[in-house]
Amino acid sequence: MIYLQVHLTLPSWLEDMQLHARNYPDDSARMALAIELARRNVDMQTGGPFGAALFDESGRVLGIGVNRVVSMNCSVAHAEMMAFMTAQARTQQLRLNETGTRVTLATSAQPCSMCYGASIWAGIDRLLVGARASDVESLAGFDEGPLPTDWIGALQQRGIEVQLDLQREAACAVLREYGSGGGKRY
Amino acid sequence: MIYLQVHLTLPSWLEDMQLHARNYPDDSARMALAIELARRNVDMQTGGPFGAALFDESGRVLGIGVNRVVSMNCSVAHAEMMAFMTAQARTQQLRLNETGTRVTLATSAQPCSMCYGASIWAGIDRLLVGARASDVESLAGFDEGPLPTDWIGALQQRGIEVQLDLQREAACAVLREYGSGGGKRY
Repeated sequence: MIYLQVHLTLPSWLEDMQLHARNYPDDSARMALAIELARRNVDMQTGGPFGAALFDESGRVLGIGVNRVVSMNCSVAHAEMMAFMTAQARTQQLRLNETGTRVTLATSAQPCSMCYGASIWAGIDRLLVGARASDVESLAGFDEGPLPTDWIGALQQRGIEVQLDLQREAACAVLREYGSGGGKRY
Repeated sequence: MIYLQVHLTLPSWLEDMQLHARNYPDDSARMALAIELARRNVDMQTGGPFGAALFDESGRVLGIGVNRVVSMNCSVAHAEMMAFMTAQARTQQLRLNETGTRVTLATSAQPCSMCYGASIWAGIDRLLVGARASDVESLAGFDEGPLPTDWIGALQQRGIEVQLDLQREAACAVLREYGSGGGKRY
């Protein structure tokens, strides 16, 4: 038999966070949420040390994601991808910014090769990055994959503004903890 | 409310093809299937002009995908991504080649930025490409996104062999038909 369906889930502890009732007015609050999601995902043993969240311009959460690669047996289930897919399912918009609101993605670590490309198609205007790819590789032992030489410029050309190193130390702390705890790499 | 689940489906006409009962012994047969999937997806009006299929080394189909971006309201739902996710759901292996079989991805058109990165994580050994990115852009009007300058070399470094231009003309014919028919670009 060949499967014609896929069903991916985020952990139920996210429901308890009641994120729809909260507001994230600035980049600092948005990055703090992405890092909190990464940390909780490790603490709750529901996936790798990565978290991401999507916000509209008023600071409301459009979607969230944590790494679910091992728990879902799915190499696509990175935090950013889960956030894109669940936000698009909720809004029924394949470009999240198609209604005109400026959409921000905050991710606890620099997008890998796959999530980088996905960020171009998902309809975001701003990309906030915590830890750098080199941090992910050195602290947690994950391969981030190859990127275009001027990966930031290629995003800017497509109207996506990039900010690096937001709360980088806090983001690195989650990676370091995961790496030193012998967490699975994939 | 924030969605914590995503459910993606492939069209039901794929079931009628009875692909699990067929065998694809060589690259020519494998690419022909990928292109046939792309063509049928256009003809059945179930998505964009892209098809992909994954094979084990004996030529059995591990998974298939067609573009479902518009029908699923999901920018992730490219043909290659659907193939990876459904094959991994079926085999419960997050690296499709982790049991030792050599896995081949045949895709009717060169992977975009996202699918390129995803191909590195999915556990494939061979990548067969029909139409080139320049064909996709010129004939069907899709943006393929930025890639590393030596994108083939970066795959080879990770043990993935690449073959371009397999049945390129047949793959281009599907793109041309879609483009000239005013098919939606996204």
